[in-house]
Amino acid sequence: MGHPKFTTWFAALLVACTPAAALWPLPQSLTTGSDLVVLATNFNIKLSMDNSPKDLQDAVSRTEHYLSHDNLGRLLVGRGSSDAAAIKTAKQLSILIVSCGVDTPRSLSDEAMDDLESRDEKYILSVPSDGTPATLRANSTLGLFRGLTTFSQLFYEYDRVIYAPETPIEIEDWPTYPYRGFMLDTARNYYPVSDIKRTLDAMSWVKINAFHWHVVDSQSFPIEVPGFMELSQQGAYGPNLVYTTSDVRDIVSYAAERGIDVVVEIDTPGHTAAIGESHPEHVVCFHATPWVNWANEPPAGQLRFANESTVFFTTSLLSAVAKMFPSKLFSTGGDEVHTNCYNADAQTQEILNSTGQTLEQSLSSFTQSTHGALEKLGKTPVVWEGRSCFLDFQCISSTETLSEMVLEHNVTLSNNTVVMVWISSQNVEAVAQKGFRVIHAASDYFYLDCGAGEWIGNDPFANSWCDPFKTWQKSYTFDPLANLTEAESKLILGGQHMLWSEQSSPHNLDSITWPRAAASAELFWSGPAGTETTANGRNVDTALPRLHDIAFRMTNRGVAAIALQPLWCALRPGVCDLTA
Amino acid sequence: MGHPKFTTWFAALLVACTPAAALWPLPQSLTTGSDLVVLATNFNIKLSMDNSPKDLQDAVSRTEHYLSHDNLGRLLVGRGSSDAAAIKTAKQLSILIVSCGVDTPRSLSDEAMDDLESRDEKYILSVPSDGTPATLRANSTLGLFRGLTTFSQLFYEYDRVIYAPETPIEIEDWPTYPYRGFMLDTARNYYPVSDIKRTLDAMSWVKINAFHWHVVDSQSFPIEVPGFMELSQQGAYGPNLVYTTSDVRDIVSYAAERGIDVVVEIDTPGHTAAIGESHPEHVVCFHATPWVNWANEPPAGQLRFANESTVFFTTSLLSAVAKMFPSKLFSTGGDEVHTNCYNADAQTQEILNSTGQTLEQSLSSFTQSTHGALEKLGKTPVVWEGRSCFLDFQCISSTETLSEMVLEHNVTLSNNTVVMVWISSQNVEAVAQKGFRVIHAASDYFYLDCGAGEWIGNDPFANSWCDPFKTWQKSYTFDPLANLTEAESKLILGGQHMLWSEQSSPHNLDSITWPRAAASAELFWSGPAGTETTANGRNVDTALPRLHDIAFRMTNRGVAAIALQPLWCALRPGVCDLTA
Repeated sequence: MGHPKFTTWFAALLVACTPAAALWPLPQSLTTGSDLVVLATNFNIKLSMDNSPKDLQDAVSRTEHYLSHDNLGRLLVGRGSSDAAAIKTAKQLSILIVSCGVDTPRSLSDEAMDDLESRDEKYILSVPSDGTPATLRANSTLGLFRGLTTFSQLFYEYDRVIYAPETPIEIEDWPTYPYRGFMLDTARNYYPVSDIKRTLDAMSWVKINAFHWHVVDSQSFPIEVPGFMELSQQGAYGPNLVYTTSDVRDIVSYAAERGIDVVVEIDTPGHTAAIGESHPEHVVCFHATPWVNWANEPPAGQLRFANESTVFFTTSLLSAVAKMFPSKLFSTGGDEVHTNCYNADAQTQEILNSTGQTLEQSLSSFTQSTHGALEKLGKTPVVWEGRSCFLDFQCISSTETLSEMVLEHNVTLSNNTVVMVWISSQNVEAVAQKGFRVIHAASDYFYLDCGAGEWIGNDPFANSWCDPFKTWQKSYTFDPLANLTEAESKLILGGQHMLWSEQSSPHNLDSITWPRAAASAELFWSGPAGTETTANGRNVDTALPRLHDIAFRMTNRGVAAIALQPLWCALRPGVCDLTA
Repeated sequence: MGHPKFTTWFAALLVACTPAAALWPLPQSLTTGSDLVVLATNFNIKLSMDNSPKDLQDAVSRTEHYLSHDNLGRLLVGRGSSDAAAIKTAKQLSILIVSCGVDTPRSLSDEAMDDLESRDEKYILSVPSDGTPATLRANSTLGLFRGLTTFSQLFYEYDRVIYAPETPIEIEDWPTYPYRGFMLDTARNYYPVSDIKRTLDAMSWVKINAFHWHVVDSQSFPIEVPGFMELSQQGAYGPNLVYTTSDVRDIVSYAAERGIDVVVEIDTPGHTAAIGESHPEHVVCFHATPWVNWANEPPAGQLRFANESTVFFTTSLLSAVAKMFPSKLFSTGGDEVHTNCYNADAQTQEILNSTGQTLEQSLSSFTQSTHGALEKLGKTPVVWEGRSCFLDFQCISSTETLSEMVLEHNVTLSNNTVVMVWISSQNVEAVAQKGFRVIHAASDYFYLDCGAGEWIGNDPFANSWCDPFKTWQKSYTFDPLANLTEAESKLILGGQHMLWSEQSSPHNLDSITWPRAAASAELFWSGPAGTETTANGRNVDTALPRLHDIAFRMTNRGVAAIALQPLWCALRPGVCDLTA
């Protein structure tokens, strides 16, 4: 540990039990000291490079703004009053020098949308106590951006002084997994662009790098697609409840400038009733009743995929959407397809009879066509693991049977396909065994909407289908590599929290999402923690004060993160533990 | 049914299955027609009385504002487009004439704070189709105010026209129960006055008439009490996180002007650690650890009630608080008292030894003193049914044992005492058998905070103690008279939803409360509904479209009520039912 003032995070915890360096996610390597350093009133961040990208310059400006406006008092009794004496004698930090290891740094936006596995988010940050410059280094713009995010979390306010406790601070940091996402469903209920942007900001603060946008579903089709304007005109909830092509460009660039790749999802062939509003010819069991016989939730409606013209329509639609999103990833969904709809559709049966194909073979052709079109555009297809759920309504709950379907049925998926496992974390092993890359999205760990009761009408005593509520602790203690061999483990790309919007809208977007979604952000950046203390000192107990900290910081930046505990507890780390 | 255009609510449902007259709570008697009437641009509400109270005039102004600003489209596909033709030929309503059956109406505020059982909230409202004046009549200002609230819910907007469908409308209405409340805990986390006022507004829109203010607890003491300023100075979370005496006056009058009585609670002798910050001499087991041995949640701390000076302090404090609140009701709490704290307190043991009293006898004396002081000031004491929980930590979950304690132990309560039953709805019968008046506040039906996971630190796999989430359907189907004799039934004053704030703050106040808390508001106004269709056509199924309606109306008035379903379902009453 060299310098006597340095102590590792873990040791610091054992010694002082303070919420030291309340960073979220926790860096891979962190050493802290026992001094503090005050931000000089003329403090500035200097990009020490020729031709610095405009979006990096903007990120610097935002960082400077956060530093001067966060006004976050330390979450300790007295809110920093115990630092008052040290603040008086502390040195002033005047500058953070940011330098890049490559001569011509690319834009942050471009790097944010690179192939997932080629992105470089590593950075090295040093904040001395002696008034000499702080330094941030990386070999990528993306790395520099992550470092700026970390830097802004080091500072607190007391009596109008901005300062960083526990200096000198040395950080070397990189993500454990390349994909840390957040999914929002904007189809069950609509969210204005401003809500999405606020969410993107909050995501970037915890280094989430993928916005999985479940933009359409059976209930509404709120995205304008060039060449397919009738879909939103007739399928959106209203003329003002649409993401225009300009809105989409705005969201994509806003996200990219914050290190976030927008992965759009057009769920097919199920979850497509809204397409039937303008294209009834492509939709089977359109609004069929009783809906329980035809869909997992109302309204029913699925693409008539055996029909060639529907295949052509779908590939054209997906291609048009794909051109709106620069991301290399594109989700075609594929969950909750009900055979009843096809068994009862005369046209489908006729086609199958005449071609001699089974329904599965037909779905396989459809999938190859749609995925093929996307791959031609340079996209990697993403699907839910329930891809070939050729079962009845029960499939959603009978995960064992479903796994068999995923694995044994004949829907051919390219090896390149990325699979999001949602039905159950128990399905990860089987999907990985098939050699697919996996994004963790299990409803039993990462669904933000669970536990709010049944939303289907006239079912007064039912609870949420995925009851209980998934606490941040539950998500945080998820093991991404459970039951996997070493080879299979390499297929894990990361994971995400998800907000399905049957019972959500802009009114509870912040409160249902934050700070809970930060749990997966740290899990997939810093690596798994579990309940035992890890090498870097993490577990649910040491995480809580830091999670409070990022929640309060979010609050001060305008995101309405909820209280995890009484303020009395938040100000007294550990004191409200079960064992305290 | 006389006039052929009239049809009862129930019949209308059977015939048309529309979300007719989306009132919340549903009036006791309602007949609707099949016309509609348009609000004239010069529409006004005329108080046809001499010396109309100022606060009634203000309520009229607010009603006029709501009528012109709600801009609520009907929750049907097309948002009112199907009314367009009828709007064109409809008559114009120019005036609502409001008249009172008494010569000198009292102020709304005074009537709102009358003795619970003497309040008169009855009104008669008539909205004709033919352009003749609408009329509102009552024998009380409070009744007129309830009628104005109903009137404002009759109107919708389409294409900038404000109109009421289903006229003519005849309403005769009164509450089934005199007490419909909402409880907010402002001690675990603090809520600014503006949040409380917004909540009071929303409460008044659904005719809730009691704000049960759990203002202090062990975590903080955020209310300034004249003569006891040290309590908030040292016990509040911070100097800006305090309700000043002026704030309290503001809240009390704001509530009263909206027909709401503010029932304050100073929980004693448990839940009082915050008093120990300034008066350690009155608090036993102050912040004792491990807290699980001394309290149901951290921090521990209870009043040393065997001590005469503590009794004097408490009666003085309660009297001082009582003078700040004009309500006739005052809650002294009484829940979750832990004997460990007294068994381990040398001073208490010494006093008990010297007086020969048991701890229970001593608690009984304390209760008689504090309640006696309140009764002298004209207050009716309110307690939680866990009054004499002389058990260990288990008492919170072992309701049977607790019931025995309530009933068999010797803490003497005046017959006049009102008991709020919180631990379990199963305890209502036993409390009523003892002859106490009851307010339903059962955690198994009315706790808004249940189901959000465990908030205690380092307990990663625990769910909320009162899991699962209490859905609006669950609350709505509560039977207030279950297991009660006819005589016991007369002791039921009403009930309320409650928001405990361990995991709540201003950020989720609206989203966790609305529209759920409207479920008890209707239950205790319109009477129980259950799952079967009642005489007035109510059940969870017919309630849902109306609940959507009031939620959207709240939204348009600035209260962030959440979405109960996808908008697709909200616009199609019944179509997302389980059986649709």
